[in-house]
Amino acid sequence: MERITTKVAIIGAGSAGMRAYREVIKTTDDVLLTEDGPYGTTCARVGCMPSKLLVSAAEAAHVGQQTAQMGVHYGAPEIDGSAVMDRVRRERDRFVGFVEETVENWSEAHRVRARATFMSDNELRLSDGRIVQADSMIIATGSRPNIPSFFNAFGDRLIVNDDVFSWDDLPTSVAVFGAGVIGLELGQALHRLGVRVTLFGRDHLVGPLTDPDVRDHAASLFMNEFEFYPHADVSNHRRADDGIAVDVVIDGQVQTRVYDYALIATGRRPNIDNLGLEKTSLELDARGVPLHDIQTGQCGTAPIFIAGDANNSAPLLHEAADEGNIAGYNAAHFPEVRRFLRSAPISVVFSDPQIMMVGETYKALTDSGKDFGVGSIDWSDQGRARVMGLNAGLLRVYGDRETGKFLGAEMVGPRAEHLAHLLAWSYQSNLTVAEMLERPFYHPVIEEGLRTALRLLHHDMQMGDMPPPRCIDCGPGG
Amino acid sequence: MERITTKVAIIGAGSAGMRAYREVIKTTDDVLLTEDGPYGTTCARVGCMPSKLLVSAAEAAHVGQQTAQMGVHYGAPEIDGSAVMDRVRRERDRFVGFVEETVENWSEAHRVRARATFMSDNELRLSDGRIVQADSMIIATGSRPNIPSFFNAFGDRLIVNDDVFSWDDLPTSVAVFGAGVIGLELGQALHRLGVRVTLFGRDHLVGPLTDPDVRDHAASLFMNEFEFYPHADVSNHRRADDGIAVDVVIDGQVQTRVYDYALIATGRRPNIDNLGLEKTSLELDARGVPLHDIQTGQCGTAPIFIAGDANNSAPLLHEAADEGNIAGYNAAHFPEVRRFLRSAPISVVFSDPQIMMVGETYKALTDSGKDFGVGSIDWSDQGRARVMGLNAGLLRVYGDRETGKFLGAEMVGPRAEHLAHLLAWSYQSNLTVAEMLERPFYHPVIEEGLRTALRLLHHDMQMGDMPPPRCIDCGPGG
Repeated sequence: MERITTKVAIIGAGSAGMRAYREVIKTTDDVLLTEDGPYGTTCARVGCMPSKLLVSAAEAAHVGQQTAQMGVHYGAPEIDGSAVMDRVRRERDRFVGFVEETVENWSEAHRVRARATFMSDNELRLSDGRIVQADSMIIATGSRPNIPSFFNAFGDRLIVNDDVFSWDDLPTSVAVFGAGVIGLELGQALHRLGVRVTLFGRDHLVGPLTDPDVRDHAASLFMNEFEFYPHADVSNHRRADDGIAVDVVIDGQVQTRVYDYALIATGRRPNIDNLGLEKTSLELDARGVPLHDIQTGQCGTAPIFIAGDANNSAPLLHEAADEGNIAGYNAAHFPEVRRFLRSAPISVVFSDPQIMMVGETYKALTDSGKDFGVGSIDWSDQGRARVMGLNAGLLRVYGDRETGKFLGAEMVGPRAEHLAHLLAWSYQSNLTVAEMLERPFYHPVIEEGLRTALRLLHHDMQMGDMPPPRCIDCGPGG
Repeated sequence: MERITTKVAIIGAGSAGMRAYREVIKTTDDVLLTEDGPYGTTCARVGCMPSKLLVSAAEAAHVGQQTAQMGVHYGAPEIDGSAVMDRVRRERDRFVGFVEETVENWSEAHRVRARATFMSDNELRLSDGRIVQADSMIIATGSRPNIPSFFNAFGDRLIVNDDVFSWDDLPTSVAVFGAGVIGLELGQALHRLGVRVTLFGRDHLVGPLTDPDVRDHAASLFMNEFEFYPHADVSNHRRADDGIAVDVVIDGQVQTRVYDYALIATGRRPNIDNLGLEKTSLELDARGVPLHDIQTGQCGTAPIFIAGDANNSAPLLHEAADEGNIAGYNAAHFPEVRRFLRSAPISVVFSDPQIMMVGETYKALTDSGKDFGVGSIDWSDQGRARVMGLNAGLLRVYGDRETGKFLGAEMVGPRAEHLAHLLAWSYQSNLTVAEMLERPFYHPVIEEGLRTALRLLHHDMQMGDMPPPRCIDCGPGG
């Protein structure tokens, strides 16, 4: 039986594995990257990129309805579903192509196309029969959609995000299950593109939001636009003629609803269940994920590191890249293991309005018992948002009453992705709310709405004056 | 002759004067605010707010042309010029109304509706004949359009920004003179709303840009969209039948061009020429503006402070408000005079694509002889910008080779107003480029384009690796 020995073995050539590889080869040429699927990443193939392409098309289909208030009138757009999906696939393929090209330009001696499973802390068995012996390992196996078994009754009409991006045309109707990031983005986008959509949520969750005020505000905005039940009572999931059917309790009445497809967006699960982890010394958590340190990537004291979606923490591209970097550095330098600082928490949902969360969540703050202040702004009357006709949403910001430091924010509203960066960078810079208020706010900008919320937070912490009423964003600065 | 004595007299109830008033009354009730025009501010009446309303309508008229690439097709919009202008005026009036309401809620004993001119460092003569004697004074008289005399040949068809916002309908054609902030914003907006526009610039200037690469890039983007001559050779300005006419050299040939109106946007001048400053001890600069300290607002050692557009530095709402605050504090506490920190320089032009500048300008850095590095990104291939169809523009960022600190940026491109805040806050936080790169960049976002530019800057300063080619923004983080 052929044995390969290497200093570092990386299992998975996705976002985390690729980044780990880039880091490892700075230190050693003795590395092996295994991948049993096609090259390309979750992000580029079925995640961030194609979803944003679909969202952009949806925005295009929606925007013509928003201009009448400004004196500009469009007829209903012609939505060419085949052209919409063609652009999504074409641009997606272009992004995937860059990824493939990158990996394929790496030394062939470093790459194996095979499935790898653990035989021990230092050994992998490849699906081609070979054995890999490595001084250190990186688990970067990614994640896949989590599909509760009762959805299997939908048979061949059960789809996940991956399937949407391979459509040649738009379907007539889709039931979306799950109001997390994927369900919200795709559900709203398909609705705007003329697909009949119902979004069935659970437990009143709206994306990752934990602040009940923001969550409920977001729910009502989305419910005003399309059929969304934040806590749906759905039963009798079944395959029906030419589609799927479910029974739903609406206003106390059971209704039968039929759709072409059921899009299951009920979360993702890490690909750690068929890795042979039981052959290693690793301790696993209740979901089977190795216990690990997020600052080192190391699993216990083993020579095994974990990065990206496989670790079941934050399934986000930029976190996967950072974790790949950390795991790569430490695997290459093992047994020296270094602690890395993690960047400020940030997440964005590309719905419309967008959702964002930064720093510590409302739930975490509340659960921790910390004495924190709150400031908020309802975007409906914010100057620039109103000028642009984007005046809907709610922002809540949190601050530490003891130190005056900015702690976090949750929001649904205009340009949330940009405010999220401003706030995440402020959080990482350890700024106090007072320091943030010393920084410039141009006029007239969405950021002035943030300033109002920060001023109210400052006042709520008993550290500043109550801002003047009205016109605080629109006129002479208040 | 009636004499009024007061601790603090404020001349002008615009953005700077209002803010000064708010600050003064924290310390003393003995204040007098004089205003000879209507209440309301330049910003709310004829500046930031109405221009952004017009820009939003223009964006609405433009957006339908941008969606075809996404598979969504609109017919040409019907642009109801009267409805466009109705919204501009109605919303403008609403904003102005908040300002008026604010001022009118202030004590009548504090307010005088009269013109004030200096009789000495401590005395004002009011146009109603009364004399005001004050311990300290604040000049907050604002600015007005600067109109070179040869434009007077346009007679009653010469208009300025103020006039645009009182239109009941859109005209057929407008010649815009001056490619500064106002000329660019209004010129492009009117073009998009179906008005035949020619923008005549001077000296290749494009907004406030000083970096030749960014300026030329911006010029070519705007020239591709509408008739814009960055360095126009115009002569024979005249009133003509039903409009105005000029002779313009185009491709070496003199052409006569006629338009309904000539919009003069060749800068603004401070309202300090009829204030009787010659009766004071103040030293004036070549333009007649009192020499003053921008951190105290004080004019020399006199009990006179100056704030807002009147000081001829940065004619921006947020700077006027800050300066009003500084002048108000110091006038109220005079003879104690305190130095205030100013916020990071930031400016935005709400053209499309937008223009922004932050921190030290390219020109200032070059003139100072500082050893600085440069990083740049052409937005045409940036991942998210491409997804949204907003992929045009250029960003250049500057950093100090000695300290690694971020120094400034100039840009034309997508979502510039938001990047401007992120960068201005970073500048004010004294961050190094390395520290900025440690902060999170979500995916896929416009901010990743900034990251590329910062990485290239870091490399240019010999402080970091060359970032990997391609896919640095789109995939596994690079």
